[in-house]
Amino acid sequence: MWQELLKEQKWWGWGEPSRRFDFSRRPYFWPHLRSLLPLPGKAFRFPPPLEALQLPPSRLTGLALSELRRILPDARFSLEDRARLIHTYGKSYRDLMRIRLGRLDAPPDAVLFPETEEEMLGLLRWAGSHGIAVVPRGGGTSVVGGVECVPVALQRPVVVLSLRRFDRVRKIDPVSRMVEAEAGITGPKLEAVLNKEGFTLGHFPESFHYSTLGGWVATRSAGQQSTRYGKIEHMVESLRILTPSGIWQTPAFPAAADGPDFDQLFVGSEGVLGIITRVRLLIHPLPQQRLYTAFLFPEFTAGAEAVQHIVQDGFLPATVRLSDALETDFFFALREQPVSRGKRVWQEWGLKFLEHQGYRSSRRSVLILGLEGSREQVRRQFKKLRRIFRRYGAYHLGPRLGQKWYRHRFDNPYLRDELLNFNLLVDTLETACDWSRFWSLYQEVCRAIRQAYQQLGIAGIVFAHLSHIYQTGTSLYFVLLAVPDPGKELEQWAVIKKAASEAIVRNGGTISHHHGVGLDHRPWIAREIGPAAVKLLRQMKRSLDSAGILNPGKLIPDAEADSTNRT
Amino acid sequence: MWQELLKEQKWWGWGEPSRRFDFSRRPYFWPHLRSLLPLPGKAFRFPPPLEALQLPPSRLTGLALSELRRILPDARFSLEDRARLIHTYGKSYRDLMRIRLGRLDAPPDAVLFPETEEEMLGLLRWAGSHGIAVVPRGGGTSVVGGVECVPVALQRPVVVLSLRRFDRVRKIDPVSRMVEAEAGITGPKLEAVLNKEGFTLGHFPESFHYSTLGGWVATRSAGQQSTRYGKIEHMVESLRILTPSGIWQTPAFPAAADGPDFDQLFVGSEGVLGIITRVRLLIHPLPQQRLYTAFLFPEFTAGAEAVQHIVQDGFLPATVRLSDALETDFFFALREQPVSRGKRVWQEWGLKFLEHQGYRSSRRSVLILGLEGSREQVRRQFKKLRRIFRRYGAYHLGPRLGQKWYRHRFDNPYLRDELLNFNLLVDTLETACDWSRFWSLYQEVCRAIRQAYQQLGIAGIVFAHLSHIYQTGTSLYFVLLAVPDPGKELEQWAVIKKAASEAIVRNGGTISHHHGVGLDHRPWIAREIGPAAVKLLRQMKRSLDSAGILNPGKLIPDAEADSTNRT
Repeated sequence: MWQELLKEQKWWGWGEPSRRFDFSRRPYFWPHLRSLLPLPGKAFRFPPPLEALQLPPSRLTGLALSELRRILPDARFSLEDRARLIHTYGKSYRDLMRIRLGRLDAPPDAVLFPETEEEMLGLLRWAGSHGIAVVPRGGGTSVVGGVECVPVALQRPVVVLSLRRFDRVRKIDPVSRMVEAEAGITGPKLEAVLNKEGFTLGHFPESFHYSTLGGWVATRSAGQQSTRYGKIEHMVESLRILTPSGIWQTPAFPAAADGPDFDQLFVGSEGVLGIITRVRLLIHPLPQQRLYTAFLFPEFTAGAEAVQHIVQDGFLPATVRLSDALETDFFFALREQPVSRGKRVWQEWGLKFLEHQGYRSSRRSVLILGLEGSREQVRRQFKKLRRIFRRYGAYHLGPRLGQKWYRHRFDNPYLRDELLNFNLLVDTLETACDWSRFWSLYQEVCRAIRQAYQQLGIAGIVFAHLSHIYQTGTSLYFVLLAVPDPGKELEQWAVIKKAASEAIVRNGGTISHHHGVGLDHRPWIAREIGPAAVKLLRQMKRSLDSAGILNPGKLIPDAEADSTNRT
Repeated sequence: MWQELLKEQKWWGWGEPSRRFDFSRRPYFWPHLRSLLPLPGKAFRFPPPLEALQLPPSRLTGLALSELRRILPDARFSLEDRARLIHTYGKSYRDLMRIRLGRLDAPPDAVLFPETEEEMLGLLRWAGSHGIAVVPRGGGTSVVGGVECVPVALQRPVVVLSLRRFDRVRKIDPVSRMVEAEAGITGPKLEAVLNKEGFTLGHFPESFHYSTLGGWVATRSAGQQSTRYGKIEHMVESLRILTPSGIWQTPAFPAAADGPDFDQLFVGSEGVLGIITRVRLLIHPLPQQRLYTAFLFPEFTAGAEAVQHIVQDGFLPATVRLSDALETDFFFALREQPVSRGKRVWQEWGLKFLEHQGYRSSRRSVLILGLEGSREQVRRQFKKLRRIFRRYGAYHLGPRLGQKWYRHRFDNPYLRDELLNFNLLVDTLETACDWSRFWSLYQEVCRAIRQAYQQLGIAGIVFAHLSHIYQTGTSLYFVLLAVPDPGKELEQWAVIKKAASEAIVRNGGTISHHHGVGLDHRPWIAREIGPAAVKLLRQMKRSLDSAGILNPGKLIPDAEADSTNRT
């Protein structure tokens, strides 16, 4: 099983092992980046060879191991170094940098691949009786430390319980528009089955190719089309959860008034209360048409006002992604150079034309607009939205740029790997807030990050886009690029992350809109949800997982972990 | 304070004391009803005079009483019989019949009207230290026994804690489209404040004039326009809850991934976990136009297919209310007789025309369709929906009937009072289920109710409508009319209620779509939410309300109450 994973994706980075970000026809990117940041002349920080990495030996021995053999056949668990290595971290900057630095001091002691609920319940009993920590894992794409084995768990053996064998679609109900699927199914597999029946889930996070249904639910994930299809918590109708104290099956109704909604307790529970094994969700007929196009606003504020206008007017485009000035410059810098000379001249002329029309670089703001639905709906919506956008000074760049964005919408993590080769610090942060706080939050977070760069004495930039829009507010997604001092990468990252998180929480934003809590956001969780909620989470934890074996050290703050030095 | 309530609404029935259901131009209703049920020639079961009712004396005395005086000024609590009487029950059939039968053996010992959170916290401490049960009450319009003082609580004094002095709008944020208001505000007051600023909440349950924001939240209420504006749980952004163990303020973000959503624990918690004091919710600009109109389908199934079609196609009309054949007959029987002879002839001719066109009485199915939005949106939506409905054989009856429905949309409870005068059993039940189960659920529940009538040897009918539609399913609302044996009303009601509830749960429906759990649905709650959820509810109860003073005997099943004889 784990050997397949090794073929499926890079253990040290993102995506298909044979694939790299394609710069071949993008000559403007590196010069643009170098104009902003003092990059080294050549890449120098490469991932180490797999064989070079040394792991501490597995601590799973003796009775525990022999009992494990009785629950799972040998082929479905592994104590091998390579298996443990590829299940050590998620895919955050901190994770990938630790791999490049060879810091792998907290790997799991074994990786388990149960295939049935009986096996899984057996494993939970087994882990409980031996005090073994269990880290549930879907696609392992967490960017907030949600799937790693934390020091607090390392006093005892830790196993990764992979959900990847729970990957079947159990039922599609075309009448009630619902799918029931197992939690370990990945995005492409789920969509393939649904598409064959004429449906889609409409959930396409950037991690789509590798992340799993259960992971989406456990982390309150949002897809790039969430404005139309909702975040995952809006799609879930019922859940099946295995906890050390038994199976919890929530009822499935379109709506109900029979007390609290317990689904919403497990959506976002990040594996600390139980292991989600099955999910029942709303599906949609495949859209007849997908129109992705791009607009340019003279500045970010104008674009923000325009998208607030449309969402509050009841429009539900699939994608709305509005970049600030700096991100817009990157958008243009990543453009492809046309092959023919004539087209190159034409492209240059077009860029000059935009400047001349008042869409100045370092001020202008690009909007990716995605519309999905029937041809008629898409056509009519587009006409109306274009009219509204024009009132805010928008220029319609046309569908070619939108389609390019759509085609490359899962590619950013590949680009990150390239930047890591230059030892760049590359991280993303996301939040959400009311429309009335959006502008000050945006400015304050950018300011806090820049101040952190300054304080550290390193060069860095930050830019942002606004996506996942709601009637009451919007999410904000920040991208950080900096040149850390070699050898101090992780420690400098922690300073910046802390400054940004403080600024988010202080200015009325949530510590996470869709990445989740994991390890990285845990220090802010008590302030955000309040002491009563923390107390209840702890009680639930004690009640459902009395031995405290599930994903220890994540999500729920406790005194011990709050003071853990995390760099 | 309680004197005002007595002026505000009938203590023995529904609505304004001076107002009765208007039969003056509705000559067809009683003959129609009599053709279906053997009614007595004259009404005979009238509410008793207020003065005639005897209550057991208040058990609130001595130290507890003198301490209470230190927390609340005399004017804001009452031990008077009339105050206690009007806070004894909600507005269910069982409640109103018990009043008519003079059964008032479980009144509260006092009624309290705190004005500040400090007072309320003081009252909770006071109640805890004396072991006094506290029944939080908003508008007191529960139809499932959610606000009464149950026998289990009667071993100790019980006080009703009225939220009616918590009735201010604290903030309207027009930019972020949000209102923050106190929980005791009634529908009309909240809407008046919002309307003045150009907004609406869009939440109009039948109880709108008397029910309160906090009550809506505590019971997962749905308004008649929920298809467009959502149920109350979809509107809530944050809550403030007072519990005996402290204040719980949930964070307010348009969306977040910072762990479970605790709002959804308190939405539907029915006063057993804490007292909701403030709510922050999404608001909408007042619609430019409201179009309410009526269509006629040849039969219920055709109508159901049509409304499933439109909601799954993404249409969000404000109101969709499709009556089955029997309810449609009542709809026509309740029509007004035109004053002029010519118009009377025209009306009769119209009815014959419909029969001739295939819309046969006792088969046809009337749909009330409500559209809200900009003129342009309403016009365009109407055109499209009419086209779709025609494909299912619909005849457009025109907006006059729809407008009449809209004008009288809060009147049904007045009609119920008239029927109670004839000692009719009048109750409503509601559920929701997937589209794929809808038809069999509808049939089975009707069958179970008819069987219960038969078993009891009483005459009775049941009809239903479908409203509150979702992509995955629909709610179903049943109306029961029967002629119980005098003296056996409550006991026969219990038999019918049980049969209906069993049929609902057995056939894949929820025990409640929007009325809540209270006392009446409590026997089915464990089966519906499962043992793990019940266990968690009990733990939460112990944690937040360790003295067990909040609304005892409601929502959460326990062994004691499950075996209570409830008639």
